[in-house]
Amino acid sequence: MRILGIDPGLQTTGFGVVDLDGHALRYVASGTISTTHLARGDLPARLKVLFEGIAEVRSRYTPDAAAVEIVFVNANPQSTLLLGQARGACVTALVAGALPVAEYTALQMKQAVAGYGRAGKAEVQEMVKRLLQLPGLPGKDAADALGLAITHAHAGSSMARLARAAGTARRSTGMYKAGRTY
Amino acid sequence: MRILGIDPGLQTTGFGVVDLDGHALRYVASGTISTTHLARGDLPARLKVLFEGIAEVRSRYTPDAAAVEIVFVNANPQSTLLLGQARGACVTALVAGALPVAEYTALQMKQAVAGYGRAGKAEVQEMVKRLLQLPGLPGKDAADALGLAITHAHAGSSMARLARAAGTARRSTGMYKAGRTY
Repeated sequence: MRILGIDPGLQTTGFGVVDLDGHALRYVASGTISTTHLARGDLPARLKVLFEGIAEVRSRYTPDAAAVEIVFVNANPQSTLLLGQARGACVTALVAGALPVAEYTALQMKQAVAGYGRAGKAEVQEMVKRLLQLPGLPGKDAADALGLAITHAHAGSSMARLARAAGTARRSTGMYKAGRTY
Repeated sequence: MRILGIDPGLQTTGFGVVDLDGHALRYVASGTISTTHLARGDLPARLKVLFEGIAEVRSRYTPDAAAVEIVFVNANPQSTLLLGQARGACVTALVAGALPVAEYTALQMKQAVAGYGRAGKAEVQEMVKRLLQLPGLPGKDAADALGLAITHAHAGSSMARLARAAGTARRSTGMYKAGRTY
């Protein structure tokens, strides 16, 4: 199973693609989609860049599932509104088509990758490097996105085990809902 | 010129299509895209319905331009975040392709349609009915969306007049930016 992780942001959205083969994780690709070259006030143009960037990543790597970070309200309500719109564009790029989309908080991602929810950015980078046996540290946004893909790989395995144990197919379809907290 | 107005909302997004022929406005279509039949917690599925609904309206009516309401922060930050994501999905559905997207506040729309920014919902419905010579009152969300299309038609005409007066092509390309306040 190939998983696409997305760390949404209006200025920079990180993406990471990971293959899960049995219990083995394999790095495929990662990077960022940036809108900083565009006028700050031209929100439609920035949302278009995010949408088209993710659409391009999807068509290049053809993932089977996606995992997106659940964003939280910011101290600045205007920033919350802008981040919300960026995330809306990212999720839309994923659901346009038939890609299943799971959602995880940064806390869940850090727990899955680094073992504790208060891990810093550098620790996430280091652990992602180790788990995927990368030659160097991934960038911060890409590391978070790879971390989300890894989180989903772990959640998927746990859910699949649960489903097998319970002998139901119903539970296994719940794997893509793991982590949704709305 | 055919204009598509969008009043974005996570539960209900209104749309309205208006033709501008010289100075004459003509009603084409209006309606709402609702996500209330879906589980509240399944945000990706709800964003998908908004995206696909607007994409369907676009392909059916082939507008030349779109006008979207600029949303504001809510007293409840979580609502702000959800509304932001809904608007992100709506704007994404418009910019995916080459549709120019203008943005107007509710205040600008009410000023353009009813003559003052504090007009109530019922007044907007009544004025939209009158301006477009509709046989009955449009629904509230559809009326706001039609009002946004009318606002853009007015702004377009004003900008086009300005451009002609100044004898520049440069200004006339600014018409789609009228109302952007980010």
